[in-house]
Formats: sequence, C-alpha cells, structure tokens
Amino acid sequence: KSKQLLRVNGFVCKNPMEVNADDFFKAAALDKPRVTNKVGSNVTLINVMQIAGLNTLGISIARIDYAPLGQNPPHTHPRATEILTVLEGTLYVGFVTSNQPAPNRNKFLSKVLNKGDVFVFPVGLIHFQFNPNPHKPAVAIAALSSQNPGAITIANAVFGSDPQISDDVLAKAFQVEKNTIDWLQAQFWENNH
Amino acid sequence: KSKQLLRVNGFVCKNPMEVNADDFFKAAALDKPRVTNKVGSNVTLINVMQIAGLNTLGISIARIDYAPLGQNPPHTHPRATEILTVLEGTLYVGFVTSNQPAPNRNKFLSKVLNKGDVFVFPVGLIHFQFNPNPHKPAVAIAALSSQNPGAITIANAVFGSDPQISDDVLAKAFQVEKNTIDWLQAQFWENNH
Amino acid sequence: KSKQLLRVNGFVCKNPMEVNADDFFKAAALDKPRVTNKVGSNVTLINVMQIAGLNTLGISIARIDYAPLGQNPPHTHPRATEILTVLEGTLYVGFVTSNQPAPNRNKFLSKVLNKGDVFVFPVGLIHFQFNPNPHKPAVAIAALSSQNPGAITIANAVFGSDPQISDDVLAKAFQVEKNTIDWLQAQFWENNH
Amino acid sequence: KSKQLLRVNGFVCKNPMEVNADDFFKAAALDKPRVTNKVGSNVTLINVMQIAGLNTLGISIARIDYAPLGQNPPHTHPRATEILTVLEGTLYVGFVTSNQPAPNRNKFLSKVLNKGDVFVFPVGLIHFQFNPNPHKPAVAIAALSSQNPGAITIANAVFGSDPQISDDVLAKAFQVEKNTIDWLQAQFWENNH
Amino acid sequence: KSKQLLRVNGFVCKNPMEVNADDFFKAAALDKPRVTNKVGSNVTLINVMQIAGLNTLGISIARIDYAPLGQNPPHTHPRATEILTVLEGTLYVGFVTSNQPAPNRNKFLSKVLNKGDVFVFPVGLIHFQFNPNPHKPAVAIAALSSQNPGAITIANAVFGSDPQISDDVLAKAFQVEKNTIDWLQAQFWENNH
Amino acid sequence: KSKQLLRVNGFVCKNPMEVNADDFFKAAALDKPRVTNKVGSNVTLINVMQIAGLNTLGISIARIDYAPLGQNPPHTHPRATEILTVLEGTLYVGFVTSNQPAPNRNKFLSKVLNKGDVFVFPVGLIHFQFNPNPHKPAVAIAALSSQNPGAITIANAVFGSDPQISDDVLAKAFQVEKNTIDWLQAQFWENNH
Repeated sequence: KSKQLLRVNGFVCKNPMEVNADDFFKAAALDKPRVTNKVGSNVTLINVMQIAGLNTLGISIARIDYAPLGQNPPHTHPRATEILTVLEGTLYVGFVTSNQPAPNRNKFLSKVLNKGDVFVFPVGLIHFQFNPNPHKPAVAIAALSSQNPGAITIANAVFGSDPQISDDVLAKAFQVEKNTIDWLQAQFWENNH
Repeated sequence: KSKQLLRVNGFVCKNPMEVNADDFFKAAALDKPRVTNKVGSNVTLINVMQIAGLNTLGISIARIDYAPLGQNPPHTHPRATEILTVLEGTLYVGFVTSNQPAPNRNKFLSKVLNKGDVFVFPVGLIHFQFNPNPHKPAVAIAALSSQNPGAITIANAVFGSDPQISDDVLAKAFQVEKNTIDWLQAQFWENNH
Repeated sequence: KSKQLLRVNGFVCKNPMEVNADDFFKAAALDKPRVTNKVGSNVTLINVMQIAGLNTLGISIARIDYAPLGQNPPHTHPRATEILTVLEGTLYVGFVTSNQPAPNRNKFLSKVLNKGDVFVFPVGLIHFQFNPNPHKPAVAIAALSSQNPGAITIANAVFGSDPQISDDVLAKAFQVEKNTIDWLQAQFWENNH
Repeated sequence: KSKQLLRVNGFVCKNPMEVNADDFFKAAALDKPRVTNKVGSNVTLINVMQIAGLNTLGISIARIDYAPLGQNPPHTHPRATEILTVLEGTLYVGFVTSNQPAPNRNKFLSKVLNKGDVFVFPVGLIHFQFNPNPHKPAVAIAALSSQNPGAITIANAVFGSDPQISDDVLAKAFQVEKNTIDWLQAQFWENNH
Repeated sequence: KSKQLLRVNGFVCKNPMEVNADDFFKAAALDKPRVTNKVGSNVTLINVMQIAGLNTLGISIARIDYAPLGQNPPHTHPRATEILTVLEGTLYVGFVTSNQPAPNRNKFLSKVLNKGDVFVFPVGLIHFQFNPNPHKPAVAIAALSSQNPGAITIANAVFGSDPQISDDVLAKAFQVEKNTIDWLQAQFWENNH
Repeated sequence: KSKQLLRVNGFVCKNPMEVNADDFFKAAALDKPRVTNKVGSNVTLINVMQIAGLNTLGISIARIDYAPLGQNPPHTHPRATEILTVLEGTLYVGFVTSNQPAPNRNKFLSKVLNKGDVFVFPVGLIHFQFNPNPHKPAVAIAALSSQNPGAITIANAVFGSDPQISDDVLAKAFQVEKNTIDWLQAQFWENNH
C-alpha cells in the first residue's frame, strides 16, 4: 500500500516516514556558468520539477547568466514575485506597472544594479534584466514565490507560439503592417528558460 | 471616533453597522454600448474602485464592447482569472500558455465563440478577444477573480510606457532593428481599460 | 503513463502539453431563456463541473432567469461572493448581514436594480433576487468567486432535506407549532440551481 | 509616533516590542454556566474582539450552554468551519449539505453526541445542536477556523431582520400565506450569539 | 467507478452524495483523563487522521492532561495557531517571540491561567504549559487552526532525533561541552503528542 | 490627501502613481563578507523592512556568512520555507521533521552541500547549517517564502529570552538539573539574525 503514489498538485506526495534528504536536495551546479542563448541569457530554475519536496511550499530559486550585452528579455511570471541579487557584473533592470487611468501610461521603473544589490519584480508584471557591459558577463541569483512560478517570454508568446496567433490580430494590436508581423513570426524564437 | 476611516488594502473599511446597500451597488449602465478606442474595444470594469463593498471579496465584473473587426488586444491580468460569455455577435478568442520545455513552444489555444458561449482565461496568461465580423459589433460580459485584477496591455506596456524602455533592449528582445522599435514607440498607445 | 489521470480537488488535472481550447470552453447557451421553476427562477451555473479547466482558478459564471413575479429565493453560497448585473427587466435584491451585537438585529440591505446595474452579495450571506414585474421576465448574469461555489436554498435545506430535520427542533427554532413545520416539510421543495 | 495605532483588518496592530501577555489573554470564565435565551442556548464566543492578539491568526473558541430541551438553532458561519466537543450532557447535532443535483435533495447528516465526542460542521453549512434531555443542561466547547467567524441565525436573519424582508418574497420562498410570514415577523427574535 | 478513491492532500475525498455523519464524527472520549508521560502531560489531538471530513477545513481540537507539576514542554506547531481554555486546575503558560533587533532579546510572555481563562499561542512560536500545582492535575481544551497542525517538541527534536544531530553542532549552538550533549542525547525522549 | 500614509500589514502602502524604482531596491551589499558572531555566522536578511515594495509579495532574500567551523544554529522560520544555494565552501545542513507517531522519533534529514547545490528547509521545521571546514569560510544565498519570515534561534529563545523562562520548567523539559539550566541562562545569547 505504501507503494501507491499519492499526488498533490499533480506531483508525488510521499509518506512523511519515507522522505529523505534527497527529496529536498538538488546538485544543481548553480555555481557553474551556462551557455547563453540567442538573446544572451540562460535561466537555470530549480523548482518542484527538480526538487519534489518543494511541492506546496511556495518558493523556487534560479541562477541567471547574462552574456556581454545579453538580456533576459521582457517576460512575466504568472504565479510569482521575483527577488534578485547580482553576483557578478552589472545589470540594468526594470518592470512596467499595470495599466493606469488615462491620461497616465504604464509606468516603467528601472535601476542599474551593481554586485550585491537587490531588486524586486512584483507578481505578473512585465520585467527584464540587461547586461550593459559589452565585454563581461553578468550573473544573478533570483528567487520566486512559487514552487512552479511559470514564465512567459513576451516576444515568444506573442510572435512565436504554436500555432501562431492570427497576423490580423497582431497587426492591429501592435499598429504595424501584417508583413511586419509575418516577418516577426518567421524568426526563430528560442526560450531561455 | 466613528468618523475615523479604517482602511484595508488601502480602501476604506466601514463599521458593519454603518454599511448600506449603496456600498454594494453601482449604477454601471453595463447595458449601454460604449465608444470603442483605436483598436476597436472598450472595457468597462466594475471593481473595488467603483464598489467599495467589494474590498477583500475577490471578484469584479466588466462589459466589453467590440467594434466591427475590433479587438481587446493581447493583455494579461496579473492577479485574476477571467471567465467570459458573449452577449452579442461572435468573438475569436485565445490565450498562450507559459513557456514549455524545449523544443516545445508556448501553446496558443483559440476558439470561436458565439452568443451564449463561455470561455476561461487562466490567471496571468496573455489573451485577447477579436470580433471577426466586419459589419456588426460584439458585446461580452466578463468576470475576474479579484476585486482589483489589474490589466497589462502588452503592446502599451512594452512600447508605450512612461518613460520608454530602452530601444537597445527591445530591439534585441523582439529581433528587429532599433528604428522599428523607435517607430513603434512613437505611436499613440491608447489604453482601452 | 500519460493516460493516468491526475486529480486535484477531485477533478482531473491534465498535462499542460495536452490541454486544448475545449478544456476552457462550454457551449453554454447562456443567451437562451430557461424554463423557470415553482418559485419562478432558473440558475444556469457554469462551474468546474462544466469546464474542467476552471479547476483551482476560483471563478464561475451563471445566467439567472426570473419569471414575472419570480424569485431566486433566499440562499447562500458557502464558498463564494457573487457579483450580478441585470440584462433584462428589473430586480429587487437584498442580503442580510450576520448577527449583530444586541439590541441590533441582522441588517437587511436592499436595492431595486435596473438594466445595467451591478450589485454584490458578500460570501456566505443570505440573499435573494425578486422580479417585481407581474408581466415581464427578468434576466441577470452573475459571477461567483469560486470554481465550485455551492448554493444552499434556505427553505429547501431547512424544510426539504433528506432525511428531514426533527420537527421538534424546527418548531422551537422558528417559533411555530409542530404541525406548521410538518405542513412545510410536506411541500415539494424544488431546487432552482 | 509609536502612539499612532496601526490597524489590520480594522483592528489595532501593535509594535512587536510592545505586545504583552494580556494581548493574548481573556479571563473569559468559560467554566461558568450562562443564562440561556428563549430557544434555550447561549454562545460565549472569544474572538478578535475579545483578544486583540488573535488578529490574522484564524481561530476562535466558544462555550455553548444548552438548557434542557434547549437548542442552538439552525445557523451558519459564513467564514469558518466549527469543531465541537461535548463537556456535559448529550447533544443531537446535524448539518445540511449544499444543494445537490436533482432529484437529490440537500442531505441532512445528524448524530447523537455524548460527553467527549467530537463533531465537525463544515464552513458555511446550516447546522444546529439540540439538547434532547428534558431535565439536564448540556455544555460544549467549540472552536472556529477564523478570528471573526460571524454567525447567521437562519430564523432571525430571514424573519427578524431590520428592516424586514418583503412578506411577498418570503411567502413565495417558504410556500406559505403572507399572514403566516407576517405572524413570524411579529415574533421577538432574540440572538443567542 | 465510485469505488475509486480520490485523494486531496493525501487523504481520501468522498463523493458528496456518499458522505455520512460518521465522516465528521469521532467518539474521542475527550472527557476521560489520560495517563501522562515522563514530563507529565498527554495531548489527545483530533485531526484529519481521526476525522476524514476535516480535510481542507483548517481546524482541529485537543484535550491536554497535565499531571501535578507536569508540563506540555516547549514546542511549536509549524502550521497552526493554538487557542486554549482551562477546564480543570491552574496552568502557567507562555510563549517566546521570534528574534528581535539587537540589543533586544526574544520576549517571553507568560500568564497564570485559571479555570475558564483563554490564551492564544501564535503560529510557529515556541510555547509551553506547566501545571504548578504539586497535588492536583489540570486539564485544558485547545484548538488549532489546521486540520494537520504538526507539533515539534523542542527537546525531542533537538536531542532525540533519529538519527541524532552531530554533537559538534549542538555543543556550539547550546554553548555546552560535547559530553553534556552526549548525555542529553542518551536520554529517553518520549513524545507526549 | 496623497500625503496621508496608508498602511497594509502595518507597513506604508503607496499610491501606484507615486511608486518609484527605489521602493523595490536595496543597495544591500550582499556581495560583501560580514563579520560573524559567537557561533560563527551572520545572516543579512533583505525583507519588507529594507524594501517597502515587498509588502504583500511573499518573498525575501538573505546572504549567510559562515566562519570556519561556524554555524547558523538550530532555528525555525514561523512563516516561511527556505531554499538555499551555496556560493562558497561546503555546508553540512539538516532539518528535523515534526513529531512522528510512537515509537518513531523526529527524523533528522541531513546533507553535505557543495558549491552550487540547492537545499530546501520546509516551513516551521528546526534546521541549521554548519561549515565543517576548519580553515575556510562559507557563503550561501537563501530565499524565504514571506516578506517577513521571522526567525527563532532555538537556544536563544529557550535559554536567552527576556525575561527568562522558569528554570523549573526547562529543567524538566530538557531532563537536566536546574543548575545546568541556570548556567545556560547565564550565557550571553547573541542573535545572528
């Protein structure tokens, strides 16, 4: 009977007498640099899929690598706030507030972060980090307030989904010609998460 | 002393013996068509700012008007799931899932809705509604799982924020030339919420 | 293995790569009038039992039909606040607050709603809607802050339960003779939900 | 400045360095019998209004006295589940489930409790306790899963509210003549909470 | 199909039409004195493991017996606040606040409770109850704000775990010699929960 | 009027149009080594008291310095789960589960962590980190699932509170002589948080 696997949130939930330290551990090598992608970043997220013991506990952690001039492009976490500290290099970071009453526009709040600085990206808001240094990489550690925060890279979700969103819809939404949308949709949208 | 206003979540919280029906009411005229904006829609949201009694109760309601070929462009609600039913006309609706493990891309799920149909947009995901009819308007009633759901219109937040996001960052994120970004940032980004 | 159904809250929970638009959709025909019951109403609720994708998302929607002089009789939702807007006709609505310190009694807050008006019924409070027009039906759209809000029609739960509550208990609670309770318990208590 | 009172949920919230044991204490005399009311009961609830330190902590406790043949009449707690144990005497207790799909009716679940037994009344459901002994009182300790659970005595809220609910509405809802409703509304509805 | 057991939080979740009163009931004999353990107490907790219907409802109840000079030794509940009332005898109770900014130390708040008094132990804080009377036992009823609150007896968890915590670590943490730690670890740590 | 400060959870809550990037930022110097305390550690926590914008967002971050053979002694966080990654050196870490049904004892789960490894300490459980290297310091970054997690250092709370817990109580709880308790209470209990 103890072999029957219980699941909570879709993940296995063990009998308390059978858990062991490895259920709360991951040899994640967060100290090691990662190869960055096309836009110059790489997010190594340790969440409930890597550490089963995180289930229901509401937190996860990530290392983010930034190539020189690389960025973790505008994205949201639908279920988590993010707090970040810079380990190496410099980051130009920012987030955009939700819609404001007219005539106000969405506010963009930004900051240059140096080593050891801490910044917060509130749940669900569009945010990014950019390494302004053309010669040196940057590294950050970020934590998220969910064991499964999710990530939505705006450009990928809007222009690189499977299948694609109608170019009629996107052309009007972004106030551009349909062939601009078609050109955007033809790009290779690589996910850095 | 009863004149001193208590506040919860930043909103006034009344003594239970002093509340009256108007604290839970709004003559919102949700039966009346609204003038639509540049992208052809208008969202009339009744939330805690219109009905103080909604505070802490976790729900709000909206009427959405769509001009012929109008759309409620790609946007997210950072703190709410949305459920929508069509009152008039036809809507082509969809949402994009969060990032998937490579080589999978963000999935786009879409549906054509007729009068009386119901559709759900999960919390924090990018979604839109589009009226495919070139001659007739459409109308929907939507409800959201927060008394203050927030809305982030993607194009406005990315290209129309105040101040603007650096065009260096956006050019790389969206894989276009900086002058395309500059042209986008020069548009007038009108908020339909 | 992907055929093994995971369940959350007792409902099936799909692999994110296998969900499709129909998991978030219901051809609910909320535009169509319904036959009303003995007390003159009909609630068509679209919740997690109709749309599996609503699971954990905390919202549902309903169409309510009212016959001339019909009512959605006094009831509570044990797990949800309700927000309602009138689509057709006029409604006299109200709710009763919870017990107050003596000598105050439970407060009854009421309002006449016309087309387009919005009203809120806070979680767990006894409320009703009544169509005061003897000639014309009324229609409302309501949203509830749970994917499974529950409904308890007071008269049915108190006088029409299976098995019946002891008439000794009810006679004293309602300060009437036992034969009045017996007569009430002999009625046919039809559920409009 | 430390004299300025902060409030959370409308209640005073003290600086952690200034709290003392009395903020978490009440000489509640829960060991002492109380005079019971017209329906034969008395609920002495210790909640956030008696113990300020309970604020945000999600629990409260009560002593309930029952006269011989007395009852704590059908009521709900809109924001709490109740767990009860019998200290003295015998109690006939029950609750009614929320509406079920037709042709099922609301289920009534009941039990006779003896000293030391424990019973649970789930959040928002109509429930009561009755002392079937014509000669001896009964006593229970109950705990509720909120620092401010609220209580709605059904008969009082329906027939004894201020102002009264329209007798047209209630006559139809309860399938009785209006003069029966008028007679009920003319009673003195005393609150035992 | 109705024989397939659904589980929520790892516990069986029944079809609402199949629940019965026994799912919400336990003949717990909370009126009966219990044999106390080595430190002079016995906690009889009625939680979701005794009453399956408590699942997700966020409350549990306990009887606590105290021998003369017995104690419920310093412990925490990782997932619940506790509210307690004294049924018999006298209790000296207290809790310690979390760490304070230096030079302040953790505050110890204590109170002598007599029959009928009520006291609150906030979630996660170290607390105890002690019966100062050398001749008479004491009894309390406590309620906890979780269906599965957990309990961590400090001495047992620190000195009596399986396997033991390294004596190097504990010697430094408690500022004592390693042989003092070894002696402590050699005791028989009996759990009163 | 905009000068009147709203407060949520006791902390200032700004008008959304007046927030700026500094409300989400702290020049925390988390890259800089800290002087460690008597037991050889130093926790630099960045929570809602350092970054006002964290209020209600449910996360915080910390740098922890460990001297050679230093430890972050057994402690709990009453309101948060902790996830930790090692930046420098090696850590021997562990936590103790809550009480188990007899004859089982509280389980101690431990692990040696190297640079880049990740470990999770579930909410409310007693845990520690120890640097086993006699020559080199260690450094970790930890994140906690609350904007105000709290910390309770077990030895300090039990033996170093203000005022002190009665030595009668502690002697029996820890199965030692009263003069051992007195000696422990006479130590200087320095808080590393």
